[in-house]
Amino acid sequence: MPIITLTTDFGLKDSFVGTMKGVILSICPTAQLVDLTHEIPPQNILAGGLALWRAFPYFPAGTVHIAVVDPGVGTSRRPLAVRLGGQYLVGPDNGLFTSLYEEAEGRGWSIEIVHLTNKSYFLPEISRTFHGRDIFSPVAAHLANGVPLTEFGPPVPDPVRLSLPKPERLPYGWRAQVIGVDHFGNLTTNLPAAVLFAPKQTIVRLGRFEIRGVSATYGEHAPGELIALIDSENRLEIALVNGNAAQFTGAHIGDEVEVFDSPEG
Amino acid sequence: MPIITLTTDFGLKDSFVGTMKGVILSICPTAQLVDLTHEIPPQNILAGGLALWRAFPYFPAGTVHIAVVDPGVGTSRRPLAVRLGGQYLVGPDNGLFTSLYEEAEGRGWSIEIVHLTNKSYFLPEISRTFHGRDIFSPVAAHLANGVPLTEFGPPVPDPVRLSLPKPERLPYGWRAQVIGVDHFGNLTTNLPAAVLFAPKQTIVRLGRFEIRGVSATYGEHAPGELIALIDSENRLEIALVNGNAAQFTGAHIGDEVEVFDSPEG
Amino acid sequence: MPIITLTTDFGLKDSFVGTMKGVILSICPTAQLVDLTHEIPPQNILAGGLALWRAFPYFPAGTVHIAVVDPGVGTSRRPLAVRLGGQYLVGPDNGLFTSLYEEAEGRGWSIEIVHLTNKSYFLPEISRTFHGRDIFSPVAAHLANGVPLTEFGPPVPDPVRLSLPKPERLPYGWRAQVIGVDHFGNLTTNLPAAVLFAPKQTIVRLGRFEIRGVSATYGEHAPGELIALIDSENRLEIALVNGNAAQFTGAHIGDEVEVFDSPEG
Repeated sequence: MPIITLTTDFGLKDSFVGTMKGVILSICPTAQLVDLTHEIPPQNILAGGLALWRAFPYFPAGTVHIAVVDPGVGTSRRPLAVRLGGQYLVGPDNGLFTSLYEEAEGRGWSIEIVHLTNKSYFLPEISRTFHGRDIFSPVAAHLANGVPLTEFGPPVPDPVRLSLPKPERLPYGWRAQVIGVDHFGNLTTNLPAAVLFAPKQTIVRLGRFEIRGVSATYGEHAPGELIALIDSENRLEIALVNGNAAQFTGAHIGDEVEVFDSPEG
Repeated sequence: MPIITLTTDFGLKDSFVGTMKGVILSICPTAQLVDLTHEIPPQNILAGGLALWRAFPYFPAGTVHIAVVDPGVGTSRRPLAVRLGGQYLVGPDNGLFTSLYEEAEGRGWSIEIVHLTNKSYFLPEISRTFHGRDIFSPVAAHLANGVPLTEFGPPVPDPVRLSLPKPERLPYGWRAQVIGVDHFGNLTTNLPAAVLFAPKQTIVRLGRFEIRGVSATYGEHAPGELIALIDSENRLEIALVNGNAAQFTGAHIGDEVEVFDSPEG
Repeated sequence: MPIITLTTDFGLKDSFVGTMKGVILSICPTAQLVDLTHEIPPQNILAGGLALWRAFPYFPAGTVHIAVVDPGVGTSRRPLAVRLGGQYLVGPDNGLFTSLYEEAEGRGWSIEIVHLTNKSYFLPEISRTFHGRDIFSPVAAHLANGVPLTEFGPPVPDPVRLSLPKPERLPYGWRAQVIGVDHFGNLTTNLPAAVLFAPKQTIVRLGRFEIRGVSATYGEHAPGELIALIDSENRLEIALVNGNAAQFTGAHIGDEVEVFDSPEG
């Protein structure tokens, strides 16, 4: 029962995602289908890449991940299939996989990327607007069935990469960015916990808000308190206990977060 | 692993859909369950029928589709099971399947419709308000298990049909209707692409907006441009590149769209 | 193919739920995964318990239900696994399972509760903020694989219970509470239908609204009429035919509903 995941900006009000699953199950009837999310903001490639990057490490070898956030559908942007270590990605060549390429390189996983050109693995008719159904779903299902990656098309040496914001070293700390806002309104940053020298003495600044100390959990504070903590991907996060930090602070994706070792630290 | 799909107006905030799946898996433990959508606007039979009609052709023979948009639940409206070619439908007899009956007739598929009367395939207790759980789910699961359609009840010669809007021929073009607004705000019409004589010379009018030419893809235009194109079901669609055409134009389901061959065409 | 259900307040915009499924399928590849709902209002333990209580009776023996509405994640609150008759629950010890404990006791099902302490069934690294992924998902998958409950930790004699509102006997009727508002805006109460002496003569009062008679179905009334009826769990419900009773009446969870035998009854 091979696993195929789906990440899109299609939403759940139409039957688009269900249609993709019909295509997949027609080709690979035993697939285990897992929705990562279909609520990526329309055309937001960065958000799609983040959702996929967060979930990827928790899937077993052999998993095929379909990701469709694809403002260039129907133009000359290439459709891709990718192997990162033992797992596979299928989607458009528009930078959606940038974080995962970087992760794979950092960890020394082997990487193989092909341009999907072999139409015998597509649906017979290819629309100009729904490659999720006509190209990515059937290719993912054939991959899950064991068709080798090289069957789908020629290698791609130069996949599109986005320039992702990186934390910057300051004399006494770091300048990081808010890279995501989750369902609870927690603000995810791109600062890895490993760089924090003395979490309990750290000072975190976001706009006019200053937080003293990085906590271990939500539950050790009073409801309504703004706190900094280490999230489940070992990144610095800003949260409002039992509340919504994004609404409370007015912060958005891209906002700067400064982190300082306390003078007394 | 038989496929059973679900289309409802139940939303996702309650556990109603999960409950239906518990009933199904109690009877058919190996079912592949696929959600088409549960975000049909409450009691909107037309929208439910459209979602199901779009996804249907992409599922393999043997698939059972449960559809529950059912304002008449608990009254004398008949519960139905239907065979269209090799696939099955289960749901209320209120016109929800009109588009699919028409499609099947147009394509010459065989059609068989029965009134669900055999209570040995229902749950032991039938509530007056949740036939999705008590009648449609267990019947779908038994169908997926291979119980013949004729076991469930007597034939129905006169299923309820809705009068669906159809495009109308004009002297120099067509008058069509907006029949759906998708998650991206794209406006789906009921005009088949096949009637367009010269797409690049076509003029499309929606309210005070006029669009010249039917495009091939979103990506060949500048963001923010209102365009007409052929959607993934080969219907005329109106879209705003990287934006929301429904919000931009203020158009709604039922609005008229006029299509003309250009005078220079 | 063991069934594992998931109920959370995680929403669907992030890939949190998908990540949990990756963990589960890595351990129990043949699991049938069923979402009950992920739209529980953040940290609302009562709503999470209600969603699970409604769906529970419709799942077969052997099903494992994961429920994560967990404001105390990372504090000393205990993680639990529970057997109620032939089904299992996995989640935090914060009262989320109160209704189900009461149901099991009322029906005389056997109950077994353990404190999850055996780390060999957790993920190797335990975050402080995402026990759904690191503890509850792997434990549920091992339970579904057949690991005996006693393997996971010592018995818990005193699980946390919430004090749930109960209907109160009045001289000529009952005082009940609104305990849920569903997707359609129907108001669910905690009054069992069995206590209604003569439903057609019953008078139901909610704030300034008075409803005469408890109906059998929505469909026997005119659209826009406020009615009382028996819901699919045999509780008294207040609904607006083809409309939204919560919006119409302004009622909220916790509001009182009084029920009287009619003077002429």
